Amino acid sequence: MFSLLLLAAAAPLQAAPATPATPADPVEADWRAVPDDELLVMTLASGKQVVIRLAAAFAPAHVGNIRALARARWWDGTSVYRVQENWVTQWGDATEKKPLPAGITDRPAAEFEIAAFQPAVRMAKADSYSTASGITADGWPVATNGRQAWLTHCYGMVGVARDALPSTGSGAELFTPIGQSARRLDRNYTVVGRIVEGMGYLSGLPRSDTPMGFYATAAERLPITSVRLASDLPASERPHFQYRSADNPRFAAAVAKRETPDAPTVSLDGAAVCDVLPAVRRTPR
Amino acid sequence: MFSLLLLAAAAPLQAAPATPATPADPVEADWRAVPDDELLVMTLASGKQVVIRLAAAFAPAHVGNIRALARARWWDGTSVYRVQENWVTQWGDATEKKPLPAGITDRPAAEFEIAAFQPAVRMAKADSYSTASGITADGWPVATNGRQAWLTHCYGMVGVARDALPSTGSGAELFTPIGQSARRLDRNYTVVGRIVEGMGYLSGLPRSDTPMGFYATAAERLPITSVRLASDLPASERPHFQYRSADNPRFAAAVAKRETPDAPTVSLDGAAVCDVLPAVRRTPR
Repeated sequence: MFSLLLLAAAAPLQAAPATPATPADPVEADWRAVPDDELLVMTLASGKQVVIRLAAAFAPAHVGNIRALARARWWDGTSVYRVQENWVTQWGDATEKKPLPAGITDRPAAEFEIAAFQPAVRMAKADSYSTASGITADGWPVATNGRQAWLTHCYGMVGVARDALPSTGSGAELFTPIGQSARRLDRNYTVVGRIVEGMGYLSGLPRSDTPMGFYATAAERLPITSVRLASDLPASERPHFQYRSADNPRFAAAVAKRETPDAPTVSLDGAAVCDVLPAVRRTPR
Repeated sequence: MFSLLLLAAAAPLQAAPATPATPADPVEADWRAVPDDELLVMTLASGKQVVIRLAAAFAPAHVGNIRALARARWWDGTSVYRVQENWVTQWGDATEKKPLPAGITDRPAAEFEIAAFQPAVRMAKADSYSTASGITADGWPVATNGRQAWLTHCYGMVGVARDALPSTGSGAELFTPIGQSARRLDRNYTVVGRIVEGMGYLSGLPRSDTPMGFYATAAERLPITSVRLASDLPASERPHFQYRSADNPRFAAAVAKRETPDAPTVSLDGAAVCDVLPAVRRTPR
């Protein structure tokens, strides 16, 4: 079997049930419910679903818009219309002409930054983009330069697309980074969530050859069947998710193990905040 | 038009012809030829081609094997057999049974590290994985911890798959990182090259649902039609490439501009080495 080590490095920070308990394994109480109105379920024409956890506390204006858009069924019939190699997948209204529903704040104030840098676990090292970074108690990646603080753009986070600075988007057009340099977007876009299931259905799409990655023809676009808050779905269809909390010694030990792995893995004595995003899972029945 | 800024951030470090010259634009002499025997051309059953620049000077044993494998046409009829979300795409012999041709060093010494850290341009900041990093004169990303030096695993670099440490692979099974945490592989795998054209044909493949991302069925695999050194192709089919060299003030200025972009982009005062890989292009006719 090739590359066993690759598995260890890629696994989310979560123990498989059969794994013997270590100090870095979560206990049941570490798993906490994601509120149903902080889960957005996007169903693609392929039948596949993408589930987004909304960062309601960090980007309230944009998340408010997103909830209103979902309740107005605004995204139904829109599409995934941009897939730029090593950069982003973006979705919403490709025509840029669909009117926004009433109740949407067309130009909310930017939420590029957050009020304070308050991680439960801090990364051991500074990185290229910040002087300190870490994971909040409720599982969000944050960073600071000592003056401002912000949610970081990691692979799979969800950001608000917009026109040129200093504008901010409404939340109707969203993107997720699908490449390596996501952090370059920090403090320039509003982060509204994280894809917690189905990311591969957005990252594994054919790349566009156009300079900015917009599909050149309507036929290339992947239609979006519906986008709903989990709380607005019938109980029988409503998914429930839990995140692994970070304010406990198990998670701190898991991060430390990522930063300094056991031999024979050659240790780099460091890891980036985007390497240690806490696991999110469907609530066990 | 959405997200104009995304374009600026994603563009390779290369000026479009219509752009007015700035101190960060390359001049014609900055472009240098990639030798034809350092270019590997992989043709997929889809008819698409992936072109890999080989790091011949940094991993001579493994690149020697790769040249021998290409000349023996060993990869013809093999496949892309693993696509693990946010991790790697891997190719070679999915059966693990195909004999290696004569002349292959079955277990070459690991080339996880290189002799010295000698970048032409250094990144302004240390990062999570190294105390210093930069780009060599001939365009390769390198890093150091003050003791060892190595080629970094960036998105789109090509590494040698292997069994568990401390083994090293022959070079017959290769992978490229398709996610964000590529740098976690540094010093644990041998880097043999960088994909310089067609990366999207490997990154945009359907993800496997198996735990390590190996396609569960042969039908899911993408067959490889052929893999050839450019120097072994007929002159009429032989591609020629140039890399942007880094040992000049234009490239240094381009990196500095990435690290501290002009307003209105909010500057993070930093960028990672994998954010500034020099452009590689087909040699203009």
